[in-house]
Amino acid sequence: MSDPQKNSGKSKNQPQSASDGITPRAVDYGQWYLDLVKRADLAEHSPVRGCMVIKPHGYAVWEKLQREMDDRFKATGHVNAYFPLFIPLSFLAKEEEHASGFAKECAVVTHHRLKAVDGKVDVDPESKLEEPLVVRPTSETLIWAQYKNWIQSYRDLPLLINQWANVVRWEMRTRLFLRTAEFLWQEGHTAHATEAEAREEVTRMLDVYADVAENVMAVPVVRGRKTEGERFAGALDTQSIEGMMQDGKALQMGTSHYLGQNFSKSADVKFLNKDGQLEYVYATSWGTSTRLIGALIMTHSDDNGLVLPPKLAPIHVVVVPIYKTPEEQEATRTEAHAVAAELRTLGLSVKVDDRDDMQPGAKYYEWERKGVPVRIEIGPRDLEKGSLCLVRRFVIEKDGETEQELRRRKKQFVPRAEAIAAMPGLMETLQKELLERARLLRDKRSRVIDTLEDFEAFFKKEGGGLAWVHWAGTRVEEDEMAKRFETSIRCIPFPDQIPEAARGEGTCILTGKPSPQRVLMAKAY
Amino acid sequence: MSDPQKNSGKSKNQPQSASDGITPRAVDYGQWYLDLVKRADLAEHSPVRGCMVIKPHGYAVWEKLQREMDDRFKATGHVNAYFPLFIPLSFLAKEEEHASGFAKECAVVTHHRLKAVDGKVDVDPESKLEEPLVVRPTSETLIWAQYKNWIQSYRDLPLLINQWANVVRWEMRTRLFLRTAEFLWQEGHTAHATEAEAREEVTRMLDVYADVAENVMAVPVVRGRKTEGERFAGALDTQSIEGMMQDGKALQMGTSHYLGQNFSKSADVKFLNKDGQLEYVYATSWGTSTRLIGALIMTHSDDNGLVLPPKLAPIHVVVVPIYKTPEEQEATRTEAHAVAAELRTLGLSVKVDDRDDMQPGAKYYEWERKGVPVRIEIGPRDLEKGSLCLVRRFVIEKDGETEQELRRRKKQFVPRAEAIAAMPGLMETLQKELLERARLLRDKRSRVIDTLEDFEAFFKKEGGGLAWVHWAGTRVEEDEMAKRFETSIRCIPFPDQIPEAARGEGTCILTGKPSPQRVLMAKAY
Repeated sequence: MSDPQKNSGKSKNQPQSASDGITPRAVDYGQWYLDLVKRADLAEHSPVRGCMVIKPHGYAVWEKLQREMDDRFKATGHVNAYFPLFIPLSFLAKEEEHASGFAKECAVVTHHRLKAVDGKVDVDPESKLEEPLVVRPTSETLIWAQYKNWIQSYRDLPLLINQWANVVRWEMRTRLFLRTAEFLWQEGHTAHATEAEAREEVTRMLDVYADVAENVMAVPVVRGRKTEGERFAGALDTQSIEGMMQDGKALQMGTSHYLGQNFSKSADVKFLNKDGQLEYVYATSWGTSTRLIGALIMTHSDDNGLVLPPKLAPIHVVVVPIYKTPEEQEATRTEAHAVAAELRTLGLSVKVDDRDDMQPGAKYYEWERKGVPVRIEIGPRDLEKGSLCLVRRFVIEKDGETEQELRRRKKQFVPRAEAIAAMPGLMETLQKELLERARLLRDKRSRVIDTLEDFEAFFKKEGGGLAWVHWAGTRVEEDEMAKRFETSIRCIPFPDQIPEAARGEGTCILTGKPSPQRVLMAKAY
Repeated sequence: MSDPQKNSGKSKNQPQSASDGITPRAVDYGQWYLDLVKRADLAEHSPVRGCMVIKPHGYAVWEKLQREMDDRFKATGHVNAYFPLFIPLSFLAKEEEHASGFAKECAVVTHHRLKAVDGKVDVDPESKLEEPLVVRPTSETLIWAQYKNWIQSYRDLPLLINQWANVVRWEMRTRLFLRTAEFLWQEGHTAHATEAEAREEVTRMLDVYADVAENVMAVPVVRGRKTEGERFAGALDTQSIEGMMQDGKALQMGTSHYLGQNFSKSADVKFLNKDGQLEYVYATSWGTSTRLIGALIMTHSDDNGLVLPPKLAPIHVVVVPIYKTPEEQEATRTEAHAVAAELRTLGLSVKVDDRDDMQPGAKYYEWERKGVPVRIEIGPRDLEKGSLCLVRRFVIEKDGETEQELRRRKKQFVPRAEAIAAMPGLMETLQKELLERARLLRDKRSRVIDTLEDFEAFFKKEGGGLAWVHWAGTRVEEDEMAKRFETSIRCIPFPDQIPEAARGEGTCILTGKPSPQRVLMAKAY
């Protein structure tokens, strides 16, 4: 039997509030993000420049996200495969535009052996490779070289393949999850007999991404097409989903590319079509990465730490027994495990935190920081009353509400049986409310803007956000806007993605030229 | 409506038997393996020396195997995380023995940028890294550097982490799945407060591997300890599971290492124990890789292609409609889809092969080659009789049985409802029979050997297999045996792993010195 006295003793390692060690967003948003990633135990830097370590809690979220995406890829007819990590230098140079877009900051393998020189391990100069190998920054060139062996006739098409892999792009300024030298991602690479089919695929996968963003991550997104200057190197069309973070900046959360016959031509992949003629294959590629974890954090989390949608929460419910005497400890702990067992039969992932050398408060803060959607506190009085104390990780804020009022609204005492039976429903509610909350925030920071003056005021005085503006400028003028306001055209949204108030034709905010529809401008990560 | 005539037309691309393009095992076992990997669409070489492409069918098997292992890792309290691909050169050199064991054939990154020189893309000499980075051959050194930040007190222990990742070991002679420069694997790295706990973990994970090998892969294995010469570089104890392939060679299928305090000392990872004293942490690591796919192939498959245990089969049942007229096509296809739908409700993965430009025979061969456990043929007569024709991928062979008798035993006509209801049970039966078949084969090629003469005869005349022999030689004598017979001590088996007939003390087969128990000797992959 453990000593209950310990339970009321304070350790200097135990934080006094969930926000301990987390800079408030209002003080420094960038620092808040870094603090949160650290304090919620999601990831950390490694001794290898630009490479991150994804810690178990962060990786558990990624695993859930992976599963949700993978299920959807398979439901849309895709299969997984694995292609090599290394790309011969000459391959990268094959597709010209692609090469100039990607062949810059890469990790290059030049040797294949180490040896001991004067008792020190060093690179063996005699092991120099004939042709350097580039650690894949993306795999189009390698995969299309392989597709050449796999595709002969229209019967082999469509070829719908996805790969889960690590990629490396040598980045100078890194930021955990958002931009790192090595990151984890999935890259889809499909081959089609017709342009129409390939273009359909591009949109289908963008829709899958949007579905995951909104219905799994609870992050509302705008679907649209990139401008020429923002296209993937080698693509004829790049589509993306764009989310808005709490600081008003946009984040590109996934891209889907129509590659036309660019890669099939450079890799010489032809197929015999139904008319018996040889034709180059039509290609798409599409990708999302661990960057999505960054989007998740920056959309939902608060000064107390991570907020997770139930669909991605590794733990749905944490149960904390509260006690003073050994008898109370025994009783509340027993009840905590009983409640957890019942909740698990409903398909929920439940953790009982019965560590006896830690104050209940410290436990609350820890699980709040880690984003557990619901906490159940069980004390002797709850046992007597046959009720459970449920505490939600978040509620949708009302204007002018105090911290105390907020806290009160998060907490509920519910009869035991009712609380347990209602838990799966509560998870669905939280999932929906999180999306709604993100939508409200996004709407609050979205603006339909018609003049450059208003545009300037929005981004330089009012904090910025998503600007819906008419645009008919050139690429040079696009760059000009970027320099002046640090904004970019996030996408040319598909018509149904434009808010009612922003629809219709107009004139370009910069040039005054006619424009058929508004585009989405914002600062971006 | 498609033209049923096509169904009876032969294409020159359609093989005339399942074994088409596969060299028989009896003719050339090595070539059989390569042919099978190719013809079953599992994997192929890439233009990058030593790196393989795992094709969708091979990757689907790997995904199922991963899931089975991952579930077991989690059930034994482990969590996943992700550590960087690159290891700074200086890290690899930290643990001396480890360095000399691994720091040989590695891919070394020396530059981080490419540039166009005279219109040709090349490595930018100005982008040379201050410290070369090694592409991880295994991650102990990097992970332990990170654990230093994670472990302060006994409360942080045990730390039970696994990683799914790609690793690179520059191999000169490669063989798909069995030995490639890059391969996929999982590596567990755990930290413990006591030696006893760490040693328990080593055995626990070896047991998990043995469970997966026998109860998922249907490959019987021997558990044991490696001799000093065969230990993992930096380990105090290496345990392994050893399977036997159809050519009588052993294959190491998984290893689990007790690392003592070697890595915690080189990375300086101490913890405050319960007595308030600082102590170095005790470590284990354990791994399995895509090599297991090679073991799967070489244990079960035959001259007609891949044979898969139902638990790892991406498709459990393939349904092939057989018809001559358009009416028959319509009727059998409808029935095929109906049967498939019913089987799917029982949790089975079912494929209907209703391609109308291919002969039924060609379909049978294709799915046989790919290892689908059961085929259902549905022709007009089956419809009339209300029965289904079930064809099992394999049966346990009887001595002296002809090919035709074998074929007859694989085929059964069963009333429709009964056939469907019995299918999950049939899958369990096949799973069990596959393990039994492998056990029978292994027993047939296992020999208790007491003299060097018999040993020589076994390996040089009788085809070899697993030899149970007493051994008390030195490391030098061990090497001598290896040179003379191309055999090695696969493991010093745990007592309960030794067959009855091989138990007890004896004298060394080479030196005549006393030996407490027999060891397992074999040629090996």
